[in-house]
Amino acid sequence: MTFAATILTLYPDMFPGPLGMSLAGRALSEGRWSLDARNIRDFATDKHRTVDDTPAGGGAGMVLRADVLAAAIDSVATGAPLIAMTPRGVPLTQRRVRDLASGPGVTILCGRFEGFDERIFAARGIEEVSIGDYILSGGEMGALVLLDACIRLLPGVMGAPSSGDDESFESGLLEYPHYTRPNEWEGRTIPEVLRSGDHARIAAWRKLMAETETRLRRPDLWERHEGVRVKPPSGARRQTKDA
Amino acid sequence: MTFAATILTLYPDMFPGPLGMSLAGRALSEGRWSLDARNIRDFATDKHRTVDDTPAGGGAGMVLRADVLAAAIDSVATGAPLIAMTPRGVPLTQRRVRDLASGPGVTILCGRFEGFDERIFAARGIEEVSIGDYILSGGEMGALVLLDACIRLLPGVMGAPSSGDDESFESGLLEYPHYTRPNEWEGRTIPEVLRSGDHARIAAWRKLMAETETRLRRPDLWERHEGVRVKPPSGARRQTKDA
Repeated sequence: MTFAATILTLYPDMFPGPLGMSLAGRALSEGRWSLDARNIRDFATDKHRTVDDTPAGGGAGMVLRADVLAAAIDSVATGAPLIAMTPRGVPLTQRRVRDLASGPGVTILCGRFEGFDERIFAARGIEEVSIGDYILSGGEMGALVLLDACIRLLPGVMGAPSSGDDESFESGLLEYPHYTRPNEWEGRTIPEVLRSGDHARIAAWRKLMAETETRLRRPDLWERHEGVRVKPPSGARRQTKDA
Repeated sequence: MTFAATILTLYPDMFPGPLGMSLAGRALSEGRWSLDARNIRDFATDKHRTVDDTPAGGGAGMVLRADVLAAAIDSVATGAPLIAMTPRGVPLTQRRVRDLASGPGVTILCGRFEGFDERIFAARGIEEVSIGDYILSGGEMGALVLLDACIRLLPGVMGAPSSGDDESFESGLLEYPHYTRPNEWEGRTIPEVLRSGDHARIAAWRKLMAETETRLRRPDLWERHEGVRVKPPSGARRQTKDA
């Protein structure tokens, strides 16, 4: 099955861009995902191909017109989730990425200028997603990020199928630190445990390090992780299959 | 002054990529920022140009060698902040973006594979930054996002100098909703207040909407905003210039 990415943008030439290289680029040429970048301007109805207008109530910048956006959206018939990249959207998580990657694809609406006419969201049932709490020049960077995160999870894209299981966020923890040769570099050595060959000790050390890193660097993630881990299933205590 | 972006990557051809178009592309050709994308592989020391090796202690994937990374880093002499894009890094905020954009530039180290040999971070005083809680195929997408966020803030890049002040996160709030013509679309009309011409009412409505949107969509941001707003300066009560 091919993961179908449809992008509605004023800058279709930004795609595939960096996604045309490396892992994602190879996966694209192998047909593991497909790309259809459509220019929102092609759905304008006047001879000047106008897509935006001044904000109602005044203010700086321009706002993308609901009627033009709707025409662009209505041209897509993939049945994939419809997402707009907006700063006020739901923060993207690895869980949402994994959900999307296991589906038929995604249609991504990219804003520019001051943003979208508000009416489009309810009128077309658009899910708003944010890649982080900062402002970008448009939704295109967010679309590239969202696609990159999805594409690496598609079957056959990553080299080893086991790659990824230990990675940050997959377990709710940040990843443990990595080391490789040379054993000594600028007076700094690889931790002894990693050279011990004792797989149980190595696993225990990595688990401890992942927990420690998460607690120190991201108390918010740690709290959520602990909240999930220590809470027993409601009404159940030491429940077994036979109970 | 030119904002100097130096990228250390295994995929220098990904740059400027989407940053070569639109606002950022024009700013690049106008010399408002400069781009120097260097291939980490050029700093390998063996004839196979090896940049990575297997992880100490075993496991999937490959780890970027500290000695090769150090040679790449040491080749840069801009004096700009040195940042690595890592999932465990400090989450990027608009405040950090603004700080970086007001400085001389940024050097960004992009990882691939399982990541960097841990020793490089302390040895070269690297700041780790994350663009969000999801996993990407490499640091390049994060570098593009970070640069895009910075570049739009450089003097002369955005059309109107006032653009941006009201935007999400700049005030600690999400942005109020936008509307533009047509006034009626698919039975949905622009809120009456925005057509009233009463600037005070419009400003009050927008403030209320920004607060409401933030409270509903991002209680975490709202809590931080309220915490900052209601806390008086320590030891000061109704302090005036004459007090």
